[in-house]
Amino acid sequence: MTITLRELARKLDCPFEGDGAVEITGVAGLEQAGPGELVFLAQAKFRPLLEQTKASAAVVSPDLPFSRLPVLRSADPHRTFVLAARLFYEPYRPAPGIHPAAVVSPSARIGEGVSVGAFSVIGDGVEIGAGTVVFPHVTVYPGVKIGAASVLHSGVELRENVTIGDRVILHNGVVIGADGFGYLRNADGSHLKIPQMGTVIIEDDVEIGANSTVDRAALGATIIRRGAKIDDLVIVSHNCEVGENAILVAQVGIAGSSKIGRGAILSGQVGIADHLTVGEGAIIAAKSGVTGNVPAGAFISGSPHLDIRVWRKFWAVAPQLYDLVKEVKKLRARVEELEKKN
Amino acid sequence: MTITLRELARKLDCPFEGDGAVEITGVAGLEQAGPGELVFLAQAKFRPLLEQTKASAAVVSPDLPFSRLPVLRSADPHRTFVLAARLFYEPYRPAPGIHPAAVVSPSARIGEGVSVGAFSVIGDGVEIGAGTVVFPHVTVYPGVKIGAASVLHSGVELRENVTIGDRVILHNGVVIGADGFGYLRNADGSHLKIPQMGTVIIEDDVEIGANSTVDRAALGATIIRRGAKIDDLVIVSHNCEVGENAILVAQVGIAGSSKIGRGAILSGQVGIADHLTVGEGAIIAAKSGVTGNVPAGAFISGSPHLDIRVWRKFWAVAPQLYDLVKEVKKLRARVEELEKKN
Amino acid sequence: MTITLRELARKLDCPFEGDGAVEITGVAGLEQAGPGELVFLAQAKFRPLLEQTKASAAVVSPDLPFSRLPVLRSADPHRTFVLAARLFYEPYRPAPGIHPAAVVSPSARIGEGVSVGAFSVIGDGVEIGAGTVVFPHVTVYPGVKIGAASVLHSGVELRENVTIGDRVILHNGVVIGADGFGYLRNADGSHLKIPQMGTVIIEDDVEIGANSTVDRAALGATIIRRGAKIDDLVIVSHNCEVGENAILVAQVGIAGSSKIGRGAILSGQVGIADHLTVGEGAIIAAKSGVTGNVPAGAFISGSPHLDIRVWRKFWAVAPQLYDLVKEVKKLRARVEELEKKN
Repeated sequence: MTITLRELARKLDCPFEGDGAVEITGVAGLEQAGPGELVFLAQAKFRPLLEQTKASAAVVSPDLPFSRLPVLRSADPHRTFVLAARLFYEPYRPAPGIHPAAVVSPSARIGEGVSVGAFSVIGDGVEIGAGTVVFPHVTVYPGVKIGAASVLHSGVELRENVTIGDRVILHNGVVIGADGFGYLRNADGSHLKIPQMGTVIIEDDVEIGANSTVDRAALGATIIRRGAKIDDLVIVSHNCEVGENAILVAQVGIAGSSKIGRGAILSGQVGIADHLTVGEGAIIAAKSGVTGNVPAGAFISGSPHLDIRVWRKFWAVAPQLYDLVKEVKKLRARVEELEKKN
Repeated sequence: MTITLRELARKLDCPFEGDGAVEITGVAGLEQAGPGELVFLAQAKFRPLLEQTKASAAVVSPDLPFSRLPVLRSADPHRTFVLAARLFYEPYRPAPGIHPAAVVSPSARIGEGVSVGAFSVIGDGVEIGAGTVVFPHVTVYPGVKIGAASVLHSGVELRENVTIGDRVILHNGVVIGADGFGYLRNADGSHLKIPQMGTVIIEDDVEIGANSTVDRAALGATIIRRGAKIDDLVIVSHNCEVGENAILVAQVGIAGSSKIGRGAILSGQVGIADHLTVGEGAIIAAKSGVTGNVPAGAFISGSPHLDIRVWRKFWAVAPQLYDLVKEVKKLRARVEELEKKN
Repeated sequence: MTITLRELARKLDCPFEGDGAVEITGVAGLEQAGPGELVFLAQAKFRPLLEQTKASAAVVSPDLPFSRLPVLRSADPHRTFVLAARLFYEPYRPAPGIHPAAVVSPSARIGEGVSVGAFSVIGDGVEIGAGTVVFPHVTVYPGVKIGAASVLHSGVELRENVTIGDRVILHNGVVIGADGFGYLRNADGSHLKIPQMGTVIIEDDVEIGANSTVDRAALGATIIRRGAKIDDLVIVSHNCEVGENAILVAQVGIAGSSKIGRGAILSGQVGIADHLTVGEGAIIAAKSGVTGNVPAGAFISGSPHLDIRVWRKFWAVAPQLYDLVKEVKKLRARVEELEKKN
């Protein structure tokens, strides 16, 4: 796509300055950009890079004195740049059609414009909505329902009867619907498997990162609500519910039956114990281990978790505690000395 | 399967009350259940759901006053329910037979009733015991031995010469026998790979969750003992031994050459350093980082790990320590004041 | 391979003692070794095993009094043993050639002696260097460049346009180039995906463990520098750079845009927050959570991270702090008492 800056400004609903006829063919970072590309400046510290960039135009904040290049003015240059990037950038998608080396059950219902790649397996009774892309090497067990315009990258495994919504993106190696981890201990120490008879529901607009797993429920469904975004190597265990637009950063683990509120943010490597509730909009700092319910809007950290302010105060003094112990010992001696004298 | 409550009571060895002729066709949760289904009440707090359930029968404790529905009486309603579920529920398994799109080495020995799915690869000299199910998209490197009645879900990768027992379940994406992580540092800072010449042995009745990895030994074998249960995204490193019936919850990591005792429980995200021993029946609380041997029966928590009682006491006072530092400072001033006067 | 001890000593540049004509056919551990095999003694505590080994020769330190078997003398017996092991041990590699059940784009350029296994998919414009082994069930998206003598195990997924160097080993389930985790929050709480337009560059001699993921950059490239070694279940996020010969142990997570210095060691389950720098040769103890830059050569531990000495001192006294709080309370009472008297 080639578009003039003037036209781009119109599409992005931004004012521009300088030569509106300059042609933009793509976006890039300040250092990598070449002629025809659009860059952005989000932080003042990158200003020297802006002075040297070979880009043809830049998105800058409304008040930045800068006229070396034509500019788009935006109160949020990063967002405007991202919106521009989305106009220019098409992620790789294979063409529609079913590859002759795919195995598709005759009872599967495949929508219009669907792509099914080489060596993918589509089981009995599966439904795939229009425009969905199934890359090579995807296994879809029987009874799975997949919505429209979704993308299943190679190595995705969808277990029996799970449901995937519209515009869902599952990155490579994602496993949806493997058995939850449930056993009862027998008298001899062995474990009785609790049948994992439930399913998984992934609602619309969810994205799940590479090699993450969402386990099926014992009864009922594990649910990932609309718009939730999940990074790589995350586990959502059986019977959990992850709220609308929640964010789970890499390597988060959520134990069975816990509920994560709408818009909550679980930072990297956070662990949530089982049967808990994390309230709407709560923020859990990286590596926290959550062992109790977290109220809506809370900001917590640590393992065991504390209110972030308490956690910060504690760690501010932690390095002094070794000396404090000695200090108290000395004080006790001094007090004893004083007591003797009195 | 349809069975009368009377007959079900007989199979589960429980007394029943009410209409023994009611027909049971399955099990379900209190809220989802419909006619023909059996539910259970494990905790008093769910009693209101029991009053409203549309199920046809319930498993309840011996002393619960309840006669709205026919009931099975059990001292452990959850266990009785699970045993009932196992009677009714058959997890999805493909039919026996080798799919025409699988690649099976002529030198492989495939037992009776084995299923090998589309696009699975069975290498030279592989042995697969009777009734084992190999889903589509499983890669079995040469020399692997797999027992009877095991299940390998799609995306499982079994590296050369590993051994898998009977009734083992490997969920999607499990990797058994990838190289252990072993190097010697060269003088120039580069790393000399230590050949990982050993293997992995997975004994009978082990279950391993999605995307977990068990690495092959440098010499000898990494061993998962009979009945151990492993959740998703766990790593068992080279030369480890995981004891009989041990439990490894999601995202546990065990470094090289460590031994986990029989029946030990490692909760989610626990890390065990290398060359350690965790004793029989020990319990390691979630997120603990274990850097020393753990005695049999111990219950520990934290990173570095502490006895759980010590850990709890420490964290009970941790939020007070910021103020304690100030308090001690004041006390010192007061003692100095007193000393001046004396 | 069969070789005399004399010849082996020459190849390894070590002196030998005893019968130089003894024939060596392989290496093994002290307990498993049989006739024809070479063992080594690295630690004095294993001396009793050396006395009983059935091996035909041993690598021992220069000063060890031992003459029961022919020996190689080495100041570093483990290293000499590893070098011997590398002479004898050939990891399993399939024969060169493209399996008839692979799908290789006509526009792909496949080097001499390359092996492409059953059901592997090689996309348009892919280049694969001489002698590289692509096991079965590998998906290589279009535009990928792979160097010579590399090994891609089954289940590896290489996303569009990533670059893999020479002598790289990617274990099963590794995902290179899945989208980085980047969004902007919209006013309604939903998330706007930031296109991940960049790529991944894996330089020469890198090894990556099973089910690890390296995400593609938003702009530019995520880079793993020459000789870095990465264990299982690690995530390297978008726009990170992992330095030459760095070591990332299992389950490490590095958030976006962080840089890990040359030769740095990140122990198991370490988390590095985004936009940080870990200096050359720094050592991060297991389970640390790094939230600030780490200087070159530092040795840190904890979450939040502390200098290892500070961290050790803190944890040395942590179990005493519960009592310390009480002690201070008592001291205060005693001081008050004294103050009253004065």
